Amino acid sequence: MATRAFADELAARVALRESQIVLGLDPDPQRLWPVAVAADGEAGGRAAAAVLAHCRAVIAAAGPACVACKPQLACFERLGAPGIAALHEVVAAAHAAGLIVIADGKRGDVPVTAAAYAQALAGSTPAPFGPVAGLGADAFTANPLLGRDALEPLIATGAGVFVLVRTSNPGAAELQDVELAAGGAFWERVARLVDELGVPRACGLSDVGAVIGATVPEHLARARELMPSAVFLLPGIGAQGGRVEDLAAAFAPARAAGLVSASRAIVEAYASDGREPAAAARAEAERLRELAWRLR
Amino acid sequence: MATRAFADELAARVALRESQIVLGLDPDPQRLWPVAVAADGEAGGRAAAAVLAHCRAVIAAAGPACVACKPQLACFERLGAPGIAALHEVVAAAHAAGLIVIADGKRGDVPVTAAAYAQALAGSTPAPFGPVAGLGADAFTANPLLGRDALEPLIATGAGVFVLVRTSNPGAAELQDVELAAGGAFWERVARLVDELGVPRACGLSDVGAVIGATVPEHLARARELMPSAVFLLPGIGAQGGRVEDLAAAFAPARAAGLVSASRAIVEAYASDGREPAAAARAEAERLRELAWRLR
Repeated sequence: MATRAFADELAARVALRESQIVLGLDPDPQRLWPVAVAADGEAGGRAAAAVLAHCRAVIAAAGPACVACKPQLACFERLGAPGIAALHEVVAAAHAAGLIVIADGKRGDVPVTAAAYAQALAGSTPAPFGPVAGLGADAFTANPLLGRDALEPLIATGAGVFVLVRTSNPGAAELQDVELAAGGAFWERVARLVDELGVPRACGLSDVGAVIGATVPEHLARARELMPSAVFLLPGIGAQGGRVEDLAAAFAPARAAGLVSASRAIVEAYASDGREPAAAARAEAERLRELAWRLR
Repeated sequence: MATRAFADELAARVALRESQIVLGLDPDPQRLWPVAVAADGEAGGRAAAAVLAHCRAVIAAAGPACVACKPQLACFERLGAPGIAALHEVVAAAHAAGLIVIADGKRGDVPVTAAAYAQALAGSTPAPFGPVAGLGADAFTANPLLGRDALEPLIATGAGVFVLVRTSNPGAAELQDVELAAGGAFWERVARLVDELGVPRACGLSDVGAVIGATVPEHLARARELMPSAVFLLPGIGAQGGRVEDLAAAFAPARAAGLVSASRAIVEAYASDGREPAAAARAEAERLRELAWRLR
């Protein structure tokens, strides 16, 4: 992805794979596929080894129906250093499967620290012994609360940056929907910031995207109005109650303008399906792919 | 810290050590103390080994004048799995030096993921092979943008949670100071949430604290009014322009109600001091300690 802008590469991959589905990887050591729980590994790293085996199996099963994968950093961080080593392996496996990698960490910090996160996620860190490679993510999620100067070092990486605009959790309304004295909701103010920070690339979309919960489709048309060139990353399908059918407004400017993220809906499809995990995940990812692709 | 509430333990340590200073650890492999750059280590982990040696030396030098230390997670994450292993060692070194550990990661995510961050920072993760221990931090910073339901799993750990209320960076005003239709600034709304989420402990302070930049002392009196029992974590002294002398309002309810965080001001004191790094750091930490302690 070195030569093309993120948005252009994304648009090309969406077209090539005919998919707008993002495979969410939120591995819980207590809910892994049986193939993974049987995995070997040294003492301290057994949980991490099992999580890695699980993620590899999930990518192999559902990856072909997806355009990207989105590892949830918290799920790897809670396993310590072995978890981070596993995360790097998951990124490698996703890249090998032709998937764009969106690191989901929702980072946000003062500019000097934002620059360190940029190095960690999509850059490298200079050191007297030579540069230390970061995670190698193609894109990542970011929290905008600290403002423009805190987002700029993240955007400067050239990676895709998906800024939280309106999240999918029930409590999101409390702060994100609060009405401003100047009119509009707080999230709309964030949306304007996202629009200002992005520059449309050749494909018409920008490298600065927006996270908008698939659980609040009533906001999508307004969000698209405020951010005509942003790629929307839409989590909350399935377990959280969002429905692909309600997301058409996201795809209005272009097929790559909406990315539907699904984690448990795909990975745990077997629980309500009766098939073995890989077959169920493959079928559900393919079902979602077709459903989204048909919306435009 | 298993038996006492976080706030009570903090108050006891502040009294014992006569210090409200938090030693910020934001190690940059290009700006380490000479003792650290000389450190050995295997190929991929050399930067992490050097960072660890640096942090240990900083804790040994400046720790006695401080009550807590605050590792900046980004600075360890950018060194990959060896960086996380180093972070765990830094936490152990800080605990051995009698310091409370505040993990500075400013996490914020939907409830299910917030629970994973809680496990990562101040809990453990159940796995079929037995629980995987987290970082063991006594407290951590958190981003409130996702609302109450996203903060609750973090608070449920029993660790201290320092919620971003008004940050120290120049761009913070753009979103945090925006005026609400109902009156007041966005950050004041967050402050009310912090107050609602906290329960005063025996010492009168709550486990739910607030991050407020030392660069905006004009907000401190109002912040204290809105959050009478919150511990304020005050970053931005020194390099960012904040002055300890301006922070008296933070300490009004109790000495432990204000924690002054200093990173570069202590660690890089030698650059403008002429002494060797450890002596300069010790002297600067002690100077800040006296300055803050005299404010009340």
